Amino acid sequence: MRLGLLYSGGKDSTLAALLLREFYDVTLVTAHFGITDDWEHARETAETTGFDFERLELDPGVATEAVDRIREDGFPRNGIQLVHQHALETVAANGFDAVADGTRRDDRVPTVSRAQAQSLEDRHGVDYIAPLSGFGRNAVDRLVDATLDVTVGPSEEITRADYEAELRALIADREGERALEQWFPAHEQTHVTGVR
Amino acid sequence: MRLGLLYSGGKDSTLAALLLREFYDVTLVTAHFGITDDWEHARETAETTGFDFERLELDPGVATEAVDRIREDGFPRNGIQLVHQHALETVAANGFDAVADGTRRDDRVPTVSRAQAQSLEDRHGVDYIAPLSGFGRNAVDRLVDATLDVTVGPSEEITRADYEAELRALIADREGERALEQWFPAHEQTHVTGVR
Repeated sequence: MRLGLLYSGGKDSTLAALLLREFYDVTLVTAHFGITDDWEHARETAETTGFDFERLELDPGVATEAVDRIREDGFPRNGIQLVHQHALETVAANGFDAVADGTRRDDRVPTVSRAQAQSLEDRHGVDYIAPLSGFGRNAVDRLVDATLDVTVGPSEEITRADYEAELRALIADREGERALEQWFPAHEQTHVTGVR
Repeated sequence: MRLGLLYSGGKDSTLAALLLREFYDVTLVTAHFGITDDWEHARETAETTGFDFERLELDPGVATEAVDRIREDGFPRNGIQLVHQHALETVAANGFDAVADGTRRDDRVPTVSRAQAQSLEDRHGVDYIAPLSGFGRNAVDRLVDATLDVTVGPSEEITRADYEAELRALIADREGERALEQWFPAHEQTHVTGVR
């Protein structure tokens, strides 16, 4: 069965790929808006880890909509959620038997409810799989320590290919760096450099 | 990391074991009340599939409490949920680094909420993992078809070692066969006979 996994090059989506590879023919799919070249970092990690890789172009209108939402809210959660749902819809319409992401049990964003999962499956005739949704934060950290080599640092310094990077670039361009600092609380990101 | 997986010999808990075996030192743990010898079927399946096996004795008072609850409700859901929570507490107190079960995304019973999972982890210093909670019914069925040999049949004919079998035996003994038919709607169970 061909499975498309939404992939950022970070620890969660890489661990999700390792969990699924014995059961599915996994392709790492990095969805992007064409705003930055950050997707290339995900391709490098995919090559390092030996998985197939595909780049998937998203609707730039959704990036604009997400930025508008983030400006309105003053925080990024709902905007990122919007992009994640659009990315899942896009990969589900792309011919895979199953689609997956790296969302964890304890994630606040993005989240995919049972009803949303069922709806995605019914409309596209695919299985939606969230292999980390039964793992808490500590369990994920312990598995990552045991299986992956990672670089950790603040969001603005780490090269990876999640939607946040492109939304940040779009906001910096349209609203200035001050808006970025105001709307995106500082947090750590990871970039996977290898599988042990 | 040593992981204890609540195990019935059915397809869900066997698939959960296969998903976890690359990352954990998995022991299949069959929890029972000492009412029937059904746990032996789980041991046979564990031997067939090559996993370590442990039998774990539960508090018989919880079986009585569950049967009282089922009689009161007229359906088995809450009684089975009660036993599952007790079994998770018991295995979590048994020295494993992580505990797991075979609950799926679309299961109505047993279920373990995020708050319950967190509480179990905090009180016992373990990780709680539900490896199938990110898989829907169809995804599980497709993986089972691809990886396991199973026997399917009505609950009363299939030899497996879930709590239902022992609760049924206790109810048949205390309340008679009529009560069983009344409280437990007919449904299919599976017993795993091998890994492909």
